[in-house]
Amino acid sequence: MASTESSPVSPQHIVIVGAGFGGLYAAKALSQDPAFRVTVIDKRNYHLFQPLLYQVATGKLAPSDIATPIRHVLRRRPNVRVVQGAAVDLDPVARKVILNGGAEIGYDILLAATGVKHSYFGNDAWREDAPGLKTVEHALEMRQRIFSAFEAAELSQDPAEQARLMTFVVVGGGPTGVELAGAIGELAQHTLKDEFHHIDTRRTRIVLAEGAPQVLSSYPADLAAAAERSLKKLGVEVLTRTLVTHIDADGVRLKVPDGTEQVVEASTVLWAAGVRASRFGQALANRVQCTLDRAGKVEVNADLSLPAHPEIFVIGDLAHYAPDGAAALPGVAPVAMQQGAYVARLLKARQRGRSLASFRYRNQGSMAVIGRHAAVGDLRFMHVTGITAWYLWVLVHMMGLIEFGNRVVVMTRWAWNYLTRNSGSRLITSVPEARTGHAGRAHRSRD
Amino acid sequence: MASTESSPVSPQHIVIVGAGFGGLYAAKALSQDPAFRVTVIDKRNYHLFQPLLYQVATGKLAPSDIATPIRHVLRRRPNVRVVQGAAVDLDPVARKVILNGGAEIGYDILLAATGVKHSYFGNDAWREDAPGLKTVEHALEMRQRIFSAFEAAELSQDPAEQARLMTFVVVGGGPTGVELAGAIGELAQHTLKDEFHHIDTRRTRIVLAEGAPQVLSSYPADLAAAAERSLKKLGVEVLTRTLVTHIDADGVRLKVPDGTEQVVEASTVLWAAGVRASRFGQALANRVQCTLDRAGKVEVNADLSLPAHPEIFVIGDLAHYAPDGAAALPGVAPVAMQQGAYVARLLKARQRGRSLASFRYRNQGSMAVIGRHAAVGDLRFMHVTGITAWYLWVLVHMMGLIEFGNRVVVMTRWAWNYLTRNSGSRLITSVPEARTGHAGRAHRSRD
Repeated sequence: MASTESSPVSPQHIVIVGAGFGGLYAAKALSQDPAFRVTVIDKRNYHLFQPLLYQVATGKLAPSDIATPIRHVLRRRPNVRVVQGAAVDLDPVARKVILNGGAEIGYDILLAATGVKHSYFGNDAWREDAPGLKTVEHALEMRQRIFSAFEAAELSQDPAEQARLMTFVVVGGGPTGVELAGAIGELAQHTLKDEFHHIDTRRTRIVLAEGAPQVLSSYPADLAAAAERSLKKLGVEVLTRTLVTHIDADGVRLKVPDGTEQVVEASTVLWAAGVRASRFGQALANRVQCTLDRAGKVEVNADLSLPAHPEIFVIGDLAHYAPDGAAALPGVAPVAMQQGAYVARLLKARQRGRSLASFRYRNQGSMAVIGRHAAVGDLRFMHVTGITAWYLWVLVHMMGLIEFGNRVVVMTRWAWNYLTRNSGSRLITSVPEARTGHAGRAHRSRD
Repeated sequence: MASTESSPVSPQHIVIVGAGFGGLYAAKALSQDPAFRVTVIDKRNYHLFQPLLYQVATGKLAPSDIATPIRHVLRRRPNVRVVQGAAVDLDPVARKVILNGGAEIGYDILLAATGVKHSYFGNDAWREDAPGLKTVEHALEMRQRIFSAFEAAELSQDPAEQARLMTFVVVGGGPTGVELAGAIGELAQHTLKDEFHHIDTRRTRIVLAEGAPQVLSSYPADLAAAAERSLKKLGVEVLTRTLVTHIDADGVRLKVPDGTEQVVEASTVLWAAGVRASRFGQALANRVQCTLDRAGKVEVNADLSLPAHPEIFVIGDLAHYAPDGAAALPGVAPVAMQQGAYVARLLKARQRGRSLASFRYRNQGSMAVIGRHAAVGDLRFMHVTGITAWYLWVLVHMMGLIEFGNRVVVMTRWAWNYLTRNSGSRLITSVPEARTGHAGRAHRSRD
């Protein structure tokens, strides 16, 4: 009974939906405080280190290198409970989250952090022929397509078919698109070059299509130019001011700057162009008064809560945070982490009857990697490129992986793979809801 | 033209179907000899180190830890060509292998090494509820079922349902069944015990059902007894002389030694009981005169060739080798490797107009691991158990992994996982042709 006396009020129940960077940061920050009891709900049993997902897609890392069981991250925190389930709805009056299957979980405070999925801007028919990159399954789908295309090219007797199989189009020149195109360039120029007899993988054509005047459009122009140079060294054709007007199994149609249309025949098209809020954002909008932006993200108050609902917070990629008419914050991990930590601080302050100043993002810079020893970094106070930026990128991401419970082994694998230019995880496995891309079609029998 | 003069006869074309232990051993042994040109056909792009597949199924290792791209294993061997494709038929008159899709590959010598798949002894309806373990996809299916069952048990409010979710039945007490049951015991007793709040994973029920009087029926009785003791320490109920008479989504029905039937309610049933030859064996029997045994394996001559077809060899698990009425050799990696090496030696001898004595298997012993620091080994000249056997097992398997091109990183992961009793690869990902096991059902949405 001592515990009852020392904390006469039963702990406040914080329900966090989504175990991404934002959700986990909040859970960790609240977990040591007996004033709170935390439930983390995620439809996956693992936290995914999404910034490195493109390395799974290109066979550099295995999924489990960048995915840690949520229970493992939050183990030995007695006031944190982990529930594997998909939150599909909520009841803001009874203060309950409703899971797929009907189970209900009551909350005092709700923290929505379910992130985004990729989006085809209304062209959902493109999904079939241009997979995106938000989940492990997506990454495995990309991996299968990329490596199956080289296998099929090796077998093909028809030069035109071979050229089509060895053409890759990456749609979208943001960080994901740049990193994907660079990684495919590394594969073609270095990793695979000694392993085929009929094809010369160095003749692979890689097209990166971006609508804006430069790749990495949120970066300063000098860094974007450096990234373009590094991409070109890896054999990537960078097409800026270029729009994709059609995608099918044969390739893409592009509208280039002079207004004409070009067809690029390609067996592998990868989508890195747009995102849309996950469905829980719509559930929120259905049940409480709030505004969604064009991408379905939830507009939040300056303290990340919802108007008229101080007990509901939205953070990370799912949130549209643009106080005082400023530009909305980008959907990157540091924003989510800072927002998760902010909400935890705010809740602790409220417990003591205090308030907290508005959330403020401390931008510590951003980085993108193009290939081995090639990266660009905007550190705010300076711009770095080349090998310096690359090592800095490795350092930052390793620290991130370690923070989220990934193990020392990832470092070993990285060191080894970069040392040997090897690519250790390029299994062509069947994937769920397998799309019948021609390159992969032959390899799905399971006899 | 110098090369033409120095080898006036064009090299003999050896086509190897299947890049398992047998096929790769033959390919490597033939690859340095200019008298041969080798084509390795496999429907996968990777060689799988099958003895460790159960570690993928139980989340200890990632698939890419035990799977190496075939092109990588055989890189820089200019006379070896790798083709990813499924060999479905042959034309023994024109000496051609026919791939799925219709492509044909001519041969001078054909080496069939396509192995086995698992078999339900005619009860194919059990496949749905009792996945087997022969491919990476199978292992991921098992992994999903095992970890999803614990997740669902944690959420369940119904004690009977919880008990069913925390009951695992492994059918078959050979090496795979023993290793699987032991690994699940390790998970329940150690790895997961601090990670759940509602359930006590140490109360997991694990039933290992075996029809023979002992587990590991091919092992000496003292070692089988040691294995049973180790299993019991990990909480495994070992039921010998027990037959499975029915499997469905609710569990299994067992016929126990006293002749009565028992029902074990279990959400997860894993099949480790029987194998059947892969389909290429049937293709051989359709096209050339040869005999298949009850499991569909191809009966071979004392030199591993087929009767009346000295240019066709069958090796490894696909072969039934029982000269002079002896017992057929077991389907284990050392047999396949020795047979692959033998055929390479035989072909080299034939080139010199010589012959070779019959194939003879040199049995260097066998080992099975039950849990951390628990294994049994039959080294022929002595029997080892416990921690000694375990370290020996680790040593032997690491050497094997290294031989097949797996990287130093696997060792690091192993060392780390065993040191920390961690289980690093227990992602619940969707799997291809997903069976609708109730435990996994909720987790397949891809939003």
